[in-house]
Amino acid sequence: MHFTSEQPLDDGVLERAFSLDEIPGILWTPASASASTPAPLILIGHPPLGLRRMYPRLAGRARYYATEYGFAAATVELPGSGDRPRWAAVEQARADLRRAMEAGEPVGDEIVDALVLPLVEKSVPEWQAALDALLSLPEIGGPVGYEGGVISIGIRLAAVEPRISAANLFAGSLVPAAMFEEARQVGIPLQVLLQWDDEGNDRQAALDLFDAFGTKEKTLHANLGGHTGVPQFELDAGARFFARHLL
Amino acid sequence: MHFTSEQPLDDGVLERAFSLDEIPGILWTPASASASTPAPLILIGHPPLGLRRMYPRLAGRARYYATEYGFAAATVELPGSGDRPRWAAVEQARADLRRAMEAGEPVGDEIVDALVLPLVEKSVPEWQAALDALLSLPEIGGPVGYEGGVISIGIRLAAVEPRISAANLFAGSLVPAAMFEEARQVGIPLQVLLQWDDEGNDRQAALDLFDAFGTKEKTLHANLGGHTGVPQFELDAGARFFARHLL
Repeated sequence: MHFTSEQPLDDGVLERAFSLDEIPGILWTPASASASTPAPLILIGHPPLGLRRMYPRLAGRARYYATEYGFAAATVELPGSGDRPRWAAVEQARADLRRAMEAGEPVGDEIVDALVLPLVEKSVPEWQAALDALLSLPEIGGPVGYEGGVISIGIRLAAVEPRISAANLFAGSLVPAAMFEEARQVGIPLQVLLQWDDEGNDRQAALDLFDAFGTKEKTLHANLGGHTGVPQFELDAGARFFARHLL
Repeated sequence: MHFTSEQPLDDGVLERAFSLDEIPGILWTPASASASTPAPLILIGHPPLGLRRMYPRLAGRARYYATEYGFAAATVELPGSGDRPRWAAVEQARADLRRAMEAGEPVGDEIVDALVLPLVEKSVPEWQAALDALLSLPEIGGPVGYEGGVISIGIRLAAVEPRISAANLFAGSLVPAAMFEEARQVGIPLQVLLQWDDEGNDRQAALDLFDAFGTKEKTLHANLGGHTGVPQFELDAGARFFARHLL
């Protein structure tokens, strides 16, 4: 991992862009983070729309975590997104999804599998490699939380990565049937966010997924509104969830 | 309303027992409450088990609200409970419910209606009379929140009492079909607590009730576990919900 830019922000947070084996990422650290007081880390997941487009939302969350709770936060670009090379198979699946939705057809399992499973397969080891690199920095200490969507990436990470102690997942994307089985393997504390009227997401499927998670501590936060209508107060509710488990 | 006892607690909270037309109640006020800085009020609902039995739970919540957020809190005895006169009709319905549950039979609508509707009819005006009296105290100021179960009492109060600005309801009791219609009339911000594995409460009915509420701002907090297993952290989540709407 090498840092490609470094910018002190006006709230005392240090924002650094990095590159890890050609994968771009961003790390935000609170002013309080040092080798003697390393900060817990939150990995911020996001949809595959490119870091540049997602930046305002990601940076807003990271700076809130850093200034209000002293957490460090980091994110990496997903395969096939942003400045990373195009990925024909996933672009094809995305086009198939768009076509089905525009035609008002049900989205078949084969479209969901083709869209999500390769992304999980490829991105989870990348998040783990980023975790290796981030945790080697003296100012970052465990434990680690993961938050956001693509929820299937979060499910896989929560199931297989022992350094992740808690996850706050957004049930806002299509979930392959195979991921329900993996959800049963998740044993860490979870908070799951559901938009009650999410136009692109089946409510009952999201409730079934919440039910499937194997962990003994899980909380569902369902709010009225569509996919992009997550209320502002859920940012702090998520931070307090992480504070309970990471501090 | 007249006060029957007054006890300063070691956290600075003042606990006063009161009587209002023979109905016992308790008021807790924070040290900060005064005529010049009146405290917002939370009405704490509870199941019809008697104030004496419910006291530890109610006082714990009230003292947390007072010391952490500066809220006053109050509760009144439900009709037919505690030291109030027995109420034969409701006791009969409760016996019918117990018999049906012990026999593993489905609980019929007529049992639910007989158990809950008279309680709503009689107790809601009593909570409103208590509100009149409490808001006449110089150290108590609006706005007002309501929390707890019996959820049907909360639904009726949220629908008809304009002085209540926000409600945090526990979806942990049987709800008559007629209350779903009233739920559609509720327009204030709501938080609804659901225990995912509540043995005495149908999960799907609780989700349907959440769906029915007419308000534009509603949040469901569902947690793993049975009726009495509400996690401790939901106390603060509820307090923060009230802080958003009452402060």
